Amino acid sequence: MDRLVKTQKYTFAFSPYEFVLESGEKLGPITVAYETYGTLNQRGDNAVLILHALTGSAHAAGYHTPGDREPGWWDPLIGPGKVIDTNRYFVVCSNVLGSCYGTTGPASINPRTGKPYGMDFPTVTIRDMVRVQKRLLDHLGVKHLIAVIGGSMGGMQALEWAVTYPGYMDCVIPIATSAQLTPQCIAFNAVQREAIMQDPDWCGGDYYPGPGPVRGLALARMIGMITYKSDELWNRRFGRDFGGPDEKCFDFSGRFEIENYLHYQGDKLVKRFDANCYIYLAKAMDLHDIARGYDSLEEALRRIRSIVICIGISSDILFPPYLLRQLVEDLLFLGKRAKYVELKSSHGHDAFLVEFERLGAILRQFFLAIEAVAV
Amino acid sequence: MDRLVKTQKYTFAFSPYEFVLESGEKLGPITVAYETYGTLNQRGDNAVLILHALTGSAHAAGYHTPGDREPGWWDPLIGPGKVIDTNRYFVVCSNVLGSCYGTTGPASINPRTGKPYGMDFPTVTIRDMVRVQKRLLDHLGVKHLIAVIGGSMGGMQALEWAVTYPGYMDCVIPIATSAQLTPQCIAFNAVQREAIMQDPDWCGGDYYPGPGPVRGLALARMIGMITYKSDELWNRRFGRDFGGPDEKCFDFSGRFEIENYLHYQGDKLVKRFDANCYIYLAKAMDLHDIARGYDSLEEALRRIRSIVICIGISSDILFPPYLLRQLVEDLLFLGKRAKYVELKSSHGHDAFLVEFERLGAILRQFFLAIEAVAV
Repeated sequence: MDRLVKTQKYTFAFSPYEFVLESGEKLGPITVAYETYGTLNQRGDNAVLILHALTGSAHAAGYHTPGDREPGWWDPLIGPGKVIDTNRYFVVCSNVLGSCYGTTGPASINPRTGKPYGMDFPTVTIRDMVRVQKRLLDHLGVKHLIAVIGGSMGGMQALEWAVTYPGYMDCVIPIATSAQLTPQCIAFNAVQREAIMQDPDWCGGDYYPGPGPVRGLALARMIGMITYKSDELWNRRFGRDFGGPDEKCFDFSGRFEIENYLHYQGDKLVKRFDANCYIYLAKAMDLHDIARGYDSLEEALRRIRSIVICIGISSDILFPPYLLRQLVEDLLFLGKRAKYVELKSSHGHDAFLVEFERLGAILRQFFLAIEAVAV
Repeated sequence: MDRLVKTQKYTFAFSPYEFVLESGEKLGPITVAYETYGTLNQRGDNAVLILHALTGSAHAAGYHTPGDREPGWWDPLIGPGKVIDTNRYFVVCSNVLGSCYGTTGPASINPRTGKPYGMDFPTVTIRDMVRVQKRLLDHLGVKHLIAVIGGSMGGMQALEWAVTYPGYMDCVIPIATSAQLTPQCIAFNAVQREAIMQDPDWCGGDYYPGPGPVRGLALARMIGMITYKSDELWNRRFGRDFGGPDEKCFDFSGRFEIENYLHYQGDKLVKRFDANCYIYLAKAMDLHDIARGYDSLEEALRRIRSIVICIGISSDILFPPYLLRQLVEDLLFLGKRAKYVELKSSHGHDAFLVEFERLGAILRQFFLAIEAVAV
């Protein structure tokens, strides 16, 4: 069964001067958890980089054990004969810097103290994540990327890739994202961080090895979940259905089904994600601005040499489609090769993790075009 | 100076059997805080009822003292010669049941215990609020209303008025609201309640006379505030401006201006509003459904005899314009007199508290039409 995969690890920056973060702070050693699917060719130029969103992991495709019930998070799109065809491409996905799925982050052990970093972990940025990914690709022998693809925070990384390593890829495909995080998104992140940090069990981030701020993290996820879906989806899925006998609706312990769903999602995340990592990754998103360090957004965009295929989601309230539409207009104005495509869906922001058929159809045409060029 | 007004009080339901809430629970005595502007005519039929939103009060117009810097919340629209002309109309605004601005609510003294009700206060609904308002109007000698007007939770009351007392008014004008609260709005209310109830200082609602869950209430307000404005407004007002030197952006204590604004709004509300009241009013909104107790929404709408002027706000993410547009279509289908008008604004849901000129222009034409009919 060739769909069995294993998360691997690569550690670098043993010297504290080896990896300087965008903030100027030094971090090391850095371990990156990653998975690969397919085989790298001899020239090292058939690679595709997949980038995950806020609570995602390196496990994008395949199964970890033969009894696994859940495949990787983008499995319908990645595999032999699938849209991102592992018979042709060497597909890489790594857990981002600051996360808790194997890559160094606030829940990792600080070698200086022997205890988890907690809030002593330095602030990381989307650009830092991308630079760590570049180190991994160098280590793997990748010389050139055919495509860099990701949604939401993954899309932020894709755009940062295009600006930071302009000659390194043919195409970047950011989905449901923006070139600079909008104030509304910062606002939603701010209240989520606040929910975690207000929980007395957060203890200033120093809660290890305890469970930490489980109620605060669940609340943060509940807030986030509202922004990941859409009004239309909620109306169709739950409407005003009440989770119990109708007369209980006057009772404060009673919950509408939409409330039950949010609580379910909150409780589910708490079992699999670290609260400090959530705070750090939300901050990294707030700091997302491909123009930082350049004189202007235009100067940053001028650096781009790859094709940029932007996929907006029609019902996305977090990253409304106008954001990527505007980016494509800006890129075209600068003479860049860019295209905007809209994924029509009522699933809201999360559509890129749900609408595999529609997203696959959009991605397929671009991979066909890439192959036509490659022939 | 005829613009000086005083909040007055009316108390009724001294017998516990006098006022049965929609939940079946009894509540009494009930005090209602209210203000009136203008003079009731002899027939008692020149009254206009103004309904406030979540954290509003009876103080809709005028000044409380000669030195007052802030007039009532809808002052630009209500007064002598203004759109809602107090030379012609007897304007009434009362604080809703369950609030903390003079009307009986969770922060009021429970006569049975001599202590504030807290969570022993019964669940109240929008319909209960309206029935309390009707008792007040009866007490004031009002026989007929020319118009019933309100935005957001005030709009919910306006629609409930149209269904509960169909022959009592010429016109209802709900703004930025819906006939039944949507699951997305329930979701946003649920996380706000959760923020308050997770605060250890909430103490199960038993925090009087202490300040109570100030951090939780502030967080609830911050979340709410995001939904009351719009992406477009935030982009224009704050963009990605950072509240301090740029290099501090990597610091967790650093805040973007949008974050500063949310914190400011959160802290401001805490000084003026009670956390339990916030919880109860959010629950009342969740329960808002003009069809409850009727066989269907259609049956409820069939009861309406007044003109219904629905004003949606173009950038409202909490009550997207389609909600009131759909309601008007339903009313017209049933042969009712209804009209949908859209207030074009980038201010989001809060536009009805900000865009006085545009809203005034819309309201003016309807008041002119009403007067034409009256002549």
